[in-house]
Amino acid sequence: MKNYAREAISKIGGYVPGEQPRGLKRLIKLNTNENPYPPSPKVEEALKSFDYRRLRLYPDPCATELRNTAASVYGVKPEQVICGNGSDELLTIALRTFVGEGEFYAYTEPSYSLYPVLSDIQGAKPLPIPLDENFDIPGNAAELARDAKLIMLARPNAPTGNLPDEGRLKELCRKANGVVWVDEAYADFAGSSFISEIANYPNVIVSRTFSKSFSLAGLRIGLAFAPEALINEMNKVRDSYNIDFLTQAIAKAALEDVEYMRANAAKICATRDWLSEELHKMGCKVLPSQSNFIFVKPNRPASEIFTELRKDGFIVRYFNLPRISEFIRVTMGTREDMESFLEEMRQLDK
Amino acid sequence: MKNYAREAISKIGGYVPGEQPRGLKRLIKLNTNENPYPPSPKVEEALKSFDYRRLRLYPDPCATELRNTAASVYGVKPEQVICGNGSDELLTIALRTFVGEGEFYAYTEPSYSLYPVLSDIQGAKPLPIPLDENFDIPGNAAELARDAKLIMLARPNAPTGNLPDEGRLKELCRKANGVVWVDEAYADFAGSSFISEIANYPNVIVSRTFSKSFSLAGLRIGLAFAPEALINEMNKVRDSYNIDFLTQAIAKAALEDVEYMRANAAKICATRDWLSEELHKMGCKVLPSQSNFIFVKPNRPASEIFTELRKDGFIVRYFNLPRISEFIRVTMGTREDMESFLEEMRQLDK
Repeated sequence: MKNYAREAISKIGGYVPGEQPRGLKRLIKLNTNENPYPPSPKVEEALKSFDYRRLRLYPDPCATELRNTAASVYGVKPEQVICGNGSDELLTIALRTFVGEGEFYAYTEPSYSLYPVLSDIQGAKPLPIPLDENFDIPGNAAELARDAKLIMLARPNAPTGNLPDEGRLKELCRKANGVVWVDEAYADFAGSSFISEIANYPNVIVSRTFSKSFSLAGLRIGLAFAPEALINEMNKVRDSYNIDFLTQAIAKAALEDVEYMRANAAKICATRDWLSEELHKMGCKVLPSQSNFIFVKPNRPASEIFTELRKDGFIVRYFNLPRISEFIRVTMGTREDMESFLEEMRQLDK
Repeated sequence: MKNYAREAISKIGGYVPGEQPRGLKRLIKLNTNENPYPPSPKVEEALKSFDYRRLRLYPDPCATELRNTAASVYGVKPEQVICGNGSDELLTIALRTFVGEGEFYAYTEPSYSLYPVLSDIQGAKPLPIPLDENFDIPGNAAELARDAKLIMLARPNAPTGNLPDEGRLKELCRKANGVVWVDEAYADFAGSSFISEIANYPNVIVSRTFSKSFSLAGLRIGLAFAPEALINEMNKVRDSYNIDFLTQAIAKAALEDVEYMRANAAKICATRDWLSEELHKMGCKVLPSQSNFIFVKPNRPASEIFTELRKDGFIVRYFNLPRISEFIRVTMGTREDMESFLEEMRQLDK
């Protein structure tokens, strides 16, 4: 049978998202880095007070009010902000804006598993840059990425959880010939951000998501911050009405209650640091995390621990990939969830 | 200053969406084919009963319940359905799935002004196919589109409003070497659909939007129906979580009240037919419309009428483009809106 798709598409398998289990009985879901706390009460208000009749009209294609609010919260100009249907959409827009078919696209490895998938879809030439022995940006990153039109990295990194060194990142931005994309999906758990640096480099873009710290994975909203020239080019690629009416209103409400988000993030960081210490005491290797998850090398093989956790109702993430197949990634739930998890690990990982 | 964007992107101007005016006083908005009636009461229920706490979790990446409901309403299998963030996203996915950089992409002309913009973004070779003197599919369409990987057309067509001939469309589908995309954004106002034909052609995709007949332009939801093999390829390109939790719930509720939508569509068609007749009596040329808008050639120059209508608070659409610059496109509002509009036209178009 004839295959009508581009060869670049027909030959790929596609990105496999983390499992979203439905209908299981008792379950502690620690596999996709969601937030255990509900969104802000302001989100509930925005939802309840939304007049459904407004949905008959197209939303503001520029998401003006949301961008104004974001600009004020993050200390940039509204013209330096673009909104995406989740930060995943912004990553897609980045590839489509900056990387032509057959051109080089660099990304650090190991990192977010979507990065190479986006390369396949665009038909780019992938240029994986191996992180160093500490999963940090290697000293020769700029040299390795010399021909890349776009360099994608996560800070903090996923799934390892560490915060790549700021000095090395600055060196990369300065030396890179292409655009450097800093994916800050987990930055609210790190207390360090590169957003203000967009003023210092013409080629730097920083993205954020509401899926983790703002407890809004189900809403699909992400932001990117960049010099206006880069935002303008990305806006040509963006679908005009990519952010719906409700999402604009709800995301704005969430931003207006940034203190609520920060309080949750602080609780999650405390749980993370406590659990890391407890697992360490058990003899597990726990990478230092600046995220809402930890990357753990258990005493027994990770693939076995993953399967047994699953059987007992704890869903974590396991990647059967080079350099990280000995680890499991564990999202921080509530303190109570993680006490159950620790108890379970004490049973399994002897 | 260095431009980091692909040449294909930096040289384009980008799609200009129809104006979404804010804060004007008295205004009758007849320019973007929105529905004058509110969405179904079931939409309000779905919105009000949605538990905001669910937003902390990722949505179902497969939109299973929504696709099941759509499959049942439209008489296809769930595996033959893909959901988009508006049908605009589905059109984008189509280009990215089927048309590589430098490959031919055909679309009828005049038609939806987004079609050529998508070509520019993808870096495809555009192959415009001129509609015939009745704005119908020309007899030699398949021959003209011989080398195209994808052929995009709207049925009913926009901005002309007419329903292209079914026999000619079938001939095109049979003879085409590439995928034929039938954009049915306005089909609920026509009483004719090509959806059931996906069973008869391996290369046919039919898309729908909730923006017009379902009064949900602000929600951003579209569907495409196609043979499973084509859906599978498009799913590789689609962002995993492209449809948010709320949108899945609300769109499903709207589909479950398809009778409400049909009753509104019938009212709009009655208004359209009445207004067409009245304008015809005034000496205007009105193309026979099967849509929720009419394409009108006034007695005086269209660009002048457009400007004067605007001054008096009636926003319609004017395209300064070959073959259609003598027309204005007028969306059907309520009967009362259109009585005001007719009165205004009687004043202006003497």
